[in-house]
Amino acid sequence: MNEKKRIPKSAVSRLSLYLREIQRLEKDGRDRVSSTELGEFTDLTDAQVRKDLSYFGNFGTSGSGYEIATLKASLRKILGKGAMWPIVLVGVGNIGSALLRYPGFKHEGFVIKEAYDVDRNKIGVRYDELVVKDVADINKNEKGKAAKIAIIAVPEKAAQDVADILVKSNVKCILNFAPVVLKVPEGVTVRNIDLSTELENFSFLLSFSK
Amino acid sequence: MNEKKRIPKSAVSRLSLYLREIQRLEKDGRDRVSSTELGEFTDLTDAQVRKDLSYFGNFGTSGSGYEIATLKASLRKILGKGAMWPIVLVGVGNIGSALLRYPGFKHEGFVIKEAYDVDRNKIGVRYDELVVKDVADINKNEKGKAAKIAIIAVPEKAAQDVADILVKSNVKCILNFAPVVLKVPEGVTVRNIDLSTELENFSFLLSFSK
Repeated sequence: MNEKKRIPKSAVSRLSLYLREIQRLEKDGRDRVSSTELGEFTDLTDAQVRKDLSYFGNFGTSGSGYEIATLKASLRKILGKGAMWPIVLVGVGNIGSALLRYPGFKHEGFVIKEAYDVDRNKIGVRYDELVVKDVADINKNEKGKAAKIAIIAVPEKAAQDVADILVKSNVKCILNFAPVVLKVPEGVTVRNIDLSTELENFSFLLSFSK
Repeated sequence: MNEKKRIPKSAVSRLSLYLREIQRLEKDGRDRVSSTELGEFTDLTDAQVRKDLSYFGNFGTSGSGYEIATLKASLRKILGKGAMWPIVLVGVGNIGSALLRYPGFKHEGFVIKEAYDVDRNKIGVRYDELVVKDVADINKNEKGKAAKIAIIAVPEKAAQDVADILVKSNVKCILNFAPVVLKVPEGVTVRNIDLSTELENFSFLLSFSK
């Protein structure tokens, strides 16, 4: 556990990129890759690549790069790939329903197993094997207690209440699309996808450079 | 321009959060806010709030906090709010069509003015005043040359080609939903929304803490 704390969060995100690139190279029939090459793909220095990987073990032999099969297996293990991670989705609006229809998650080992909404018109709607349920029933659902990852795609005003319910139902990781800073207890991780903030970064850049 | 370079990117994202919070406070009838309070809302220290705001001017009087009307006007100006920013969207799949239907952007000053796809079944589809066009026509479109912000929501394999076309049509800021690191020339900013990487951060955390 102490080891985990010393690993910078951003390094974990970069591991995902490295894994993606070496899987692409493997498909092309390659069996080795250098840190320089991984850096080129991901727009990072080779020193950064080596440093990121060094947090998790000694994968390379100096001068000859990394063996793709070994590195892939290690990165997959580190990132918890191979397992199927159930996800609870709350909010089946524009974004939520797009996520339900997105086939890519399953391929990556993430499956939305339950979806909830407060809207009578959405409750009962079927997406493949999944039927949207009433948000009031989150804690009643036994299966809900197994999911440790949740996605919040509800309007701003409802987001904190939903987060509180999810935390009670033992969710440990929340991907939050609502434009609000959620308060959660220690031990619960929130990552925000905030489209307005991203776009405001752009309008800032474009205003300043005019 | 030099001044812009010294401002950390992350500070700009935080300005968006501060602006959102003070607009909320204003609606509640408040006229002043302290850095401590802004920090509590956004889970940052008061020193961090003061430092972020200091990049852009001297907004506060020691001890009495910030006047909400003044701070709001300044933050809105810094973030390029008030203007209406046209956006080009490429890729009208699950995510792209959700973005087209999302009413929040317009409220924030961002309007998807054009949408393109390669799929014959999607070209010609209408979303309010907007009709999806053939991606081959991006550069033919005069209006397209006015948009400096683009959203890429195409599959991984097509993303770099689309980015190249957009850069040629004078786009300076790209919000990229494709799981790939785009190569763009200097002067073009890319921000990535990578849902799989976000979820892999979670599976990493949950695997390591088991």
